[in-house]
Amino acid sequence: MHLDSASIDAMPSRERAALINSLSGFKSANLIGTADAESHCNLAIMSSVVHLGSHPPLLMLVVRPGGEERHTLHNLLRSGHYSINHVAAGMVDAAHQTAARYPRDVSEFEATGLTPSWWDGFTAPLVAEAHVQLAMQLREHQELAINGTHLVIGEVVQANIPDGCLKEDGSLDLNAAGTVALTGLDSYHRADLMKRMAYAKPDLPPRTLS
Amino acid sequence: MHLDSASIDAMPSRERAALINSLSGFKSANLIGTADAESHCNLAIMSSVVHLGSHPPLLMLVVRPGGEERHTLHNLLRSGHYSINHVAAGMVDAAHQTAARYPRDVSEFEATGLTPSWWDGFTAPLVAEAHVQLAMQLREHQELAINGTHLVIGEVVQANIPDGCLKEDGSLDLNAAGTVALTGLDSYHRADLMKRMAYAKPDLPPRTLS
Repeated sequence: MHLDSASIDAMPSRERAALINSLSGFKSANLIGTADAESHCNLAIMSSVVHLGSHPPLLMLVVRPGGEERHTLHNLLRSGHYSINHVAAGMVDAAHQTAARYPRDVSEFEATGLTPSWWDGFTAPLVAEAHVQLAMQLREHQELAINGTHLVIGEVVQANIPDGCLKEDGSLDLNAAGTVALTGLDSYHRADLMKRMAYAKPDLPPRTLS
Repeated sequence: MHLDSASIDAMPSRERAALINSLSGFKSANLIGTADAESHCNLAIMSSVVHLGSHPPLLMLVVRPGGEERHTLHNLLRSGHYSINHVAAGMVDAAHQTAARYPRDVSEFEATGLTPSWWDGFTAPLVAEAHVQLAMQLREHQELAINGTHLVIGEVVQANIPDGCLKEDGSLDLNAAGTVALTGLDSYHRADLMKRMAYAKPDLPPRTLS
C-alpha cells in the first residue's frame, strides 16, 4: 500500500492521526508528574520522551499545544521540576486514564487512584506505583514554529531504579522493570528480548551477546 | 536503588551511556537512508525517531554530533531527502551492523547486505527489505547549544505500508508489520500486544477495546 502527501492529506483527521502516530515505531510510555504553586498535582501520559545525551544526562519531551498537556507544560515551566515515571504493566489502565480531559482543579492522581510521592527538595510529585522514577530539572524549552509543539529538555537529577534490574554493562533491563511500550495512541505492549547485539565493528560480522 | 547527579556523574562513561540510554523507555528502531551528490549511499540505525504532529505529518530525529551519524546529517542537509525504514525482526543483524564506523566511501548497504530501493523523484535510498518505508522531506534543522545534538524535522511525503497491517481506526499494526523495538544501545525486542485502551473520558472508567 503506497501513500503520498495528497492521500495522507485527504484522510479523515482521526484516521490520519492514528496512522501518523504509528509511523515512528514503538514508543516509550511515561507518566509526567507536575505541581502548581499550591502543590495541586497533575499527571499526564506521554509517549514522546527520547534520549538526548548521557553526559549531562538529558531527556527531551515533545508536548503538544493545547489539550490536557498544557497543564503539565504550565507547571513545569513555572517550577522547573517534573517527574518521568515508566508505565509498568499493572498501571496501564490508570496511566491511560490520565489522558482524559479533567478540569484543572481535579488531580489525575486522585481521579485514577495513583499515589503521589514527594522527594526532598523536589517540587514535582513522582508516581509511587512506578518502578522507574526520574526527577527532572528543566534545562531548555522552545516552541517550534512549524506546528506549535513544545520541546522540553531536562536533566535527570535523581533516579529510582528497582534493585536487580541493572545489567552488568550499566543498562537497565526494562522487561525486568515491568516497563511497557506504546504504539499509536492507545496500544500497550510487553516486549520480549529477541537478542542483544555486540558493539558493531567494520571488520567483524554481527554478533549476539550472551 | 537511588541515584543523584553526583553518582550519575561519577559513573564510568560507558556504563553511564548504557544507563541513561535506557531511562527513556522503549525506543523505535529505524534505518535512516541518505545519499551524497554522487548517489553514494549511507545507512544508519537510529533509535530517536519521534512523532511531532500528524497534520502535516511530521517526525523528528535526534542526531548525535560526530560519529557515524555525521554522514547521514551531511547528506540529508544537502539533498533535503532521507528515508526512515522500520527494522523488522529478520533485519536486526544487518541493521545493527550499520552502526560500525565504516569509511566514508563504503556503503552500509553493501557492507551489510541490505538492498537500496529508489523511488521516482526521491534522491535518498529506501531499504527494500523493510516492510514499512517512509520518504522524508527535510523541513527544519537545528543544532542544540546544550549538547551539540541536531534535531532534524521532516515531513512524510510518501509511505509504503504492508497490506493487511492497517487497523480499522487507521493505525498501523506494528506487530503484524514485524517491526521491532530497541532498548538501551543494543537490545532488540518483539512486542506482544497487552491491550488497546478506549479514548479516555473524565466521566468513564478505563475500558479496553476489542
